[in-house]
Amino acid sequence: MNRNHSYSQKSDIPTHWYNIMADYPEFYVPHLDSTTHQPVNVHSLSNIFPELLAEQEINRKDVNIPIPPELLDYYAMWRPSPLIRARNLEKYLDTNCKIFYKYEGVSPIGSHKANSAIAQAYFSKKCGFTNVVAETGAGQWGSAMSMASSFFDLNCNVFMVKNSFDSKPQRRILMQTYGSKVHSSPSNLTEFGRQIRKNDPDSQGSLGIAIAEAVEYASSDRNTVYTLGSSMNFVCLHQTIIGNELKNQLNSLQITPNYIISCIGGGSSFAGICFPFLREKLERNRDLHFIAVESNAVPTVTKGIYTYDYGDTARLTPLSKMYTLGHEFSAPVIHSGGLRYHGLSPLVSKFIADGHAEARAYSQLDIYGAARLFAKLEGYVPAPESAHSVKAAIDVALENRNSGKTIVFCLTGHGFFDLAGYEKFNAGKMEDSESPDTNIHESLRKLAHTVRPETEKGAALPPQPPLNAGVQANNSFEAWWNRNFESQSPADSFQSGHTIGSAGASPKTACGREQDKGNPNLYNLLTESKVRELIDKGQKVAFLSKGCVITPLAGELIKSHGIEIKYA
Amino acid sequence: MNRNHSYSQKSDIPTHWYNIMADYPEFYVPHLDSTTHQPVNVHSLSNIFPELLAEQEINRKDVNIPIPPELLDYYAMWRPSPLIRARNLEKYLDTNCKIFYKYEGVSPIGSHKANSAIAQAYFSKKCGFTNVVAETGAGQWGSAMSMASSFFDLNCNVFMVKNSFDSKPQRRILMQTYGSKVHSSPSNLTEFGRQIRKNDPDSQGSLGIAIAEAVEYASSDRNTVYTLGSSMNFVCLHQTIIGNELKNQLNSLQITPNYIISCIGGGSSFAGICFPFLREKLERNRDLHFIAVESNAVPTVTKGIYTYDYGDTARLTPLSKMYTLGHEFSAPVIHSGGLRYHGLSPLVSKFIADGHAEARAYSQLDIYGAARLFAKLEGYVPAPESAHSVKAAIDVALENRNSGKTIVFCLTGHGFFDLAGYEKFNAGKMEDSESPDTNIHESLRKLAHTVRPETEKGAALPPQPPLNAGVQANNSFEAWWNRNFESQSPADSFQSGHTIGSAGASPKTACGREQDKGNPNLYNLLTESKVRELIDKGQKVAFLSKGCVITPLAGELIKSHGIEIKYA
Repeated sequence: MNRNHSYSQKSDIPTHWYNIMADYPEFYVPHLDSTTHQPVNVHSLSNIFPELLAEQEINRKDVNIPIPPELLDYYAMWRPSPLIRARNLEKYLDTNCKIFYKYEGVSPIGSHKANSAIAQAYFSKKCGFTNVVAETGAGQWGSAMSMASSFFDLNCNVFMVKNSFDSKPQRRILMQTYGSKVHSSPSNLTEFGRQIRKNDPDSQGSLGIAIAEAVEYASSDRNTVYTLGSSMNFVCLHQTIIGNELKNQLNSLQITPNYIISCIGGGSSFAGICFPFLREKLERNRDLHFIAVESNAVPTVTKGIYTYDYGDTARLTPLSKMYTLGHEFSAPVIHSGGLRYHGLSPLVSKFIADGHAEARAYSQLDIYGAARLFAKLEGYVPAPESAHSVKAAIDVALENRNSGKTIVFCLTGHGFFDLAGYEKFNAGKMEDSESPDTNIHESLRKLAHTVRPETEKGAALPPQPPLNAGVQANNSFEAWWNRNFESQSPADSFQSGHTIGSAGASPKTACGREQDKGNPNLYNLLTESKVRELIDKGQKVAFLSKGCVITPLAGELIKSHGIEIKYA
Repeated sequence: MNRNHSYSQKSDIPTHWYNIMADYPEFYVPHLDSTTHQPVNVHSLSNIFPELLAEQEINRKDVNIPIPPELLDYYAMWRPSPLIRARNLEKYLDTNCKIFYKYEGVSPIGSHKANSAIAQAYFSKKCGFTNVVAETGAGQWGSAMSMASSFFDLNCNVFMVKNSFDSKPQRRILMQTYGSKVHSSPSNLTEFGRQIRKNDPDSQGSLGIAIAEAVEYASSDRNTVYTLGSSMNFVCLHQTIIGNELKNQLNSLQITPNYIISCIGGGSSFAGICFPFLREKLERNRDLHFIAVESNAVPTVTKGIYTYDYGDTARLTPLSKMYTLGHEFSAPVIHSGGLRYHGLSPLVSKFIADGHAEARAYSQLDIYGAARLFAKLEGYVPAPESAHSVKAAIDVALENRNSGKTIVFCLTGHGFFDLAGYEKFNAGKMEDSESPDTNIHESLRKLAHTVRPETEKGAALPPQPPLNAGVQANNSFEAWWNRNFESQSPADSFQSGHTIGSAGASPKTACGREQDKGNPNLYNLLTESKVRELIDKGQKVAFLSKGCVITPLAGELIKSHGIEIKYA
């Protein structure tokens, strides 16, 4: 008997998060304020996020950040998550590779998202906020944030991508059971949502749109703060509890991994499980490979470019340097809703761009085939996002069949809310994915158009950027940009009237949020409804903070009613 | 910091099951063959179950039965299940009681049912069967058996109560993903199902009907064996891994429990978590209370009687002494589908009847209120069945607010497939449960009618049995029976033409199943379709094993076609 399927004990729970930016300074690739093109700082980030998270976002001094004891109590409700050996899968594949999976589906909401949600709820509460807003694609982040809000007694509003809202009522009910209000996005609650619905009444929504709605919604109320389920540096930081814990577990088994695999949507699970092992690879010279797995419907790395772009479709966020398909990229509707994001965590992007990881893209049929096989052999039914890692692990095991290598992948969550996809697959009715290259070209052209300097607007569109530029040619966008715009460097040439998070000097709350409690008219985001309020009150002047976003409909109203704009 | 939420480590996994019948001989209350009224033996039980399970069913010699190593490997995929302290709930209730929950929802199919499913699949395989059949109410057992069948490469057919089949497509898809065939019960696949559909085309099904269909289906093929998710002694045995594991976990924390709570449908989770602690209570004189929690819609203990009854509606099973509402009891449709069973495990019944445990019944509104509160405080969304234990734990904590007692309850599974109920509750549209007493009277009258001796048939129906007889008056049925039938003792007076499992002497397979491989016409169960086969082949004689069940429609056909019956 060689029974080593599962390993978890209380002492395995890490007490610290791992901060790769402090360990390897080159990972600090700052977000840029979209107006000033200056790196954002804690002050400007605090316009969107709680100051304590804003600090984590740019922390370059603490390699190991202690997890607050109260948070550890919450983590201990489901952590350590089990590390399970996939013996049946190994046998089926007839490989002498050892395959392990780190199963994050044991969290109450069924995925790794809970790891960052409780941290964000905790820090939001610490900073005095009473309300949070979240966007959600597949429903994982919305569920996680709903649970975390319930734990910390915060009101929670969730903008859920319409396609998921309609197809996953269970996710909606779960969030409502925790006490959240759930809105189908695009919604009528935000001006951006109304605009999208006006232009495209059949819009199925996207993560980019939902983020824009959530940011707009949060900005309109001083007690409300925005939460984000992936991509940001602080989210990656929180998720490193997975990798730190995995290290403890592998150490206690005296096993050294050769492959670590996770899927990438926003990138946080990949960051979480891989980052803590980078030192092993770089300094201990281990035979260790990292693999990031994406959907071929949203091939951010394998067909996108590495450049500065907005995190959301409405361009309300700062600019981040990342792999992107362009913030207006409209991903096909796939069952892996969590991977339908045009961008990728700047840290994970840098990690891949620097050659530390390989990226692979799989089709929907590929991953459902792997997921069903895995369910039949190992019992756990993977979420479609997680199924990407299953597929990669199987491929790696087959490629290295007799090598005796150790493969570890992150099974980020279960698929109990994704069974409609399994039904289609079981019935042979699953449609395959893959975005046509023309769509990607089109989106990347728009991106170039958006980020070109104002003066260039009349000029012909630039030639198509090279596809498949991702891993092989990390600086392809810069090269392409320089070919076409010569002296301009990308970061210097962004122009946009849309920005939140400018480095203004407005008054701040104790936790650093830019707000003027004394002057209710000092806006960070001026929406149509706010202008209507002013008009209704007979006010003729709107006081705005520096860098305030004025939405287009608000702008029209200001014009037509002759409202005067004054900046603080 | 006092962080003791979760405790689990590999060494906690028990290596043995606990057999209460060997430890306390009075728990052996044999099933009776419904024809001979003799206690069933391994031989006769092997007509329904694999011989190795039949042996466990009546094992009175081994207190601790070793778990086969191969099974331990499977258990280790999700065991030890976490023991979690409900600190938030304690705080909310303002009690100094310690509340712990043993969370079985971490199994791949999300409930404790997996514990017995892999054991039944393992022993079925060992006994040479290639196909298994399962019935399922809420879908938990069907899912568990589907997964287990996939692990051990068995074909699996599941009869799923129609009401659940229609309202829980996700459960169906899950079973199909593991490779099972799932049938809505009552189905057209069995004669019993066809009869029910003929009599009541709108039948919503019941666990009793589904069991009857599964038994009939299994009996019609020699390579197919029936599996049962609760109630049987061997199922209770397998589930004791929960209690044994809990013991290890509590020991390592140096905590002694004062209350152990689980819900009762068939009773296996209650048996599993409580039985291993009986010795603590009886011989170590611990201040320890066991609480069994049922639905007031199916108040088997609190309003039923303790007597011999059939396990299924079609009377194909042996007779078992248990709390029952009568095998024809038609439970109202409630969200806790797993509790919609007219009977209760004979072992658990004896446990309660002997005064070792208290029974409580709650309404649907009660338990959803408790479940939602628990989800908001502790994150985990309970299955409605499990929510009964949550409600009881809350009540016990409030009743003993300042006592410092330790309460442990079994959170048997998650409610991810039961969110429709939560939606109704959240919207204030949840209907309350509770079976009218008149329904219970009516069913118990029928039971008396069924089990009365043949000679009594013309007599007037007996007076209504006392309700609320359960715990308070354990022998009420016997008393009532004696009042009405005097000299007849219940066990002696059963008469029925329906039986499987008679103590005949037919040839057996290696693993003891009564089958005559040489004579394909030697039936254990004679159904309409089998008679039609004989007629089609022009055969005039049907050879039956002793105690063969002839279904009513088969009987009519035999009569109308003048088929001769010969018993082996």
